[in-house]
Amino acid sequence: MTLPRKVRLVEVGPRDGLQNEKQLVPADIKVELIRRLAAAGLSTIEVTSFVSPKWVPQMGDNTEVLTRVLGGAAPAGLDYPVLTPNLKGFEAALAAGAREVAVFGAASESFSQKNINCSIAESLERFRPVTEVAQAAGVRVRGYVSCVAGCPYEGAVAPEKVAEVAETLLAMGCYEISLGDTIGTGNPVSIRRMLDAVLRRVPAERLAGHYHDTYGMAAANVCASLEMGVAVFDASVGGLGGCPYAAGASGNVATEDLVWLLHGMGIDTGIDLDALVDTAAWISAEIGREPASRVARAVLAKRAKSCA
Amino acid sequence: MTLPRKVRLVEVGPRDGLQNEKQLVPADIKVELIRRLAAAGLSTIEVTSFVSPKWVPQMGDNTEVLTRVLGGAAPAGLDYPVLTPNLKGFEAALAAGAREVAVFGAASESFSQKNINCSIAESLERFRPVTEVAQAAGVRVRGYVSCVAGCPYEGAVAPEKVAEVAETLLAMGCYEISLGDTIGTGNPVSIRRMLDAVLRRVPAERLAGHYHDTYGMAAANVCASLEMGVAVFDASVGGLGGCPYAAGASGNVATEDLVWLLHGMGIDTGIDLDALVDTAAWISAEIGREPASRVARAVLAKRAKSCA
Repeated sequence: MTLPRKVRLVEVGPRDGLQNEKQLVPADIKVELIRRLAAAGLSTIEVTSFVSPKWVPQMGDNTEVLTRVLGGAAPAGLDYPVLTPNLKGFEAALAAGAREVAVFGAASESFSQKNINCSIAESLERFRPVTEVAQAAGVRVRGYVSCVAGCPYEGAVAPEKVAEVAETLLAMGCYEISLGDTIGTGNPVSIRRMLDAVLRRVPAERLAGHYHDTYGMAAANVCASLEMGVAVFDASVGGLGGCPYAAGASGNVATEDLVWLLHGMGIDTGIDLDALVDTAAWISAEIGREPASRVARAVLAKRAKSCA
Repeated sequence: MTLPRKVRLVEVGPRDGLQNEKQLVPADIKVELIRRLAAAGLSTIEVTSFVSPKWVPQMGDNTEVLTRVLGGAAPAGLDYPVLTPNLKGFEAALAAGAREVAVFGAASESFSQKNINCSIAESLERFRPVTEVAQAAGVRVRGYVSCVAGCPYEGAVAPEKVAEVAETLLAMGCYEISLGDTIGTGNPVSIRRMLDAVLRRVPAERLAGHYHDTYGMAAANVCASLEMGVAVFDASVGGLGGCPYAAGASGNVATEDLVWLLHGMGIDTGIDLDALVDTAAWISAEIGREPASRVARAVLAKRAKSCA
């Protein structure tokens, strides 16, 4: 078994993790969260989304959050991508100083229709001007593909469809394609099958895995992907985010769970696990809940015991 | 990747899962739990432990529970092993009708000393009369090895030590050796290394994996083990059991999480996932908590949504 020696984790907690929180989280807390994540060693942090506040009220402070994190004394070498679903969002992001944006397509027609009200082909055409303008402005673009291992409306999704969408996003100029198991129904067998198809069109070094932990399979799916050469994974501190398709279920895999797994397997992430667990405990308390991740709970329980 | 086509799950919820519950669970509830697990398709259910009620008060009703489940109209082909740490326990189990018992050794000297107050070698000698008397009585013996991937006192545990203890238990007549990652610190790399050593002395068809989910790694560790030919795994419905070494952390992997994983990978278990999730919800409510497993939470959340 050959594994990468180093893995880069893309922290999506401040955006993907917080966007479904009903209670508005103050910009101060978001900025502090991003600061703590950067201090813990996260080098790529998706900080906000430039969508209409009518659709996602939680991201209504996007300009303020991005401006403040870019303006602060951030350590060098940090990337702060923001989600920009259309040209209007991109222009607002650019005006706020964004140097990296993300666009997203689905691998399932039903999901595309229900989520963004257009076909997959139409959604990709909508992103094309964003990627063109971004490239002209020297802004990097990351591409998300959702429903790579299953769709809440259609069930199974053809690996070939995932590969097609990933290839199209790559051809548009995305520097990295993040493959999202949006509903967490993937397992090592189906993830391998999906990656087999994608790797015929997109090289491993351009891929990231974005695996939800709804059924507790994220760590196993990351292991399967590592064995196939994928060395970038998205995660959310404290498992922030839940699952919008099943209230009460888990969503994003917790960043600390992946750090624990990777370090245990001898893979470097550049992240300080203890500082990350502190951050998970802090943001979970701020939004009034227990950390959802097994690692945060185990590390905090062990600390409580050794202090007793 | 070659995977087994069929996997047997050994349900340890009624014993390992409940033994640390402070509030005594009535025998009626335990018997009903075992009945529901059998009805859901679990063919091996560890039902109780014949230890001194001074040490484990929760198992004080061992004779009643075993007698009732053996006496009821249980479906054919069911195994109801019970834990018997010494000859006295074995004789009580035999008197109650046990047809299968389990003994346990540790792969860590410190753990053996702190847990059962003797060395590994002494503990194995203590089990020898149990296995001898059991074999004479036609009672099957299952062997547990604890701390196979780490010890709460020593940290890392040598794979060679695990292999030695497993081989000794096999030589004593155990029909199956269950390899316990007691504190859940194993990962696919360390589990593979441990299994490499064990498989040089014990064939895969005599091994079971008993992986705790304290750090969310159980599913990944099961996948690594499946690839090495292990096709029996221990699990606890609803993730009952917690972690005695870190209060508030997870312990036993949930049976429904493994069923979901295995079925998703096309592996047969003979278990009805919906009935198992119902059982997880029922026993969790009986002991006053939410089901700890991701699969139970996701399935229950999805059901609630489709009814709304």
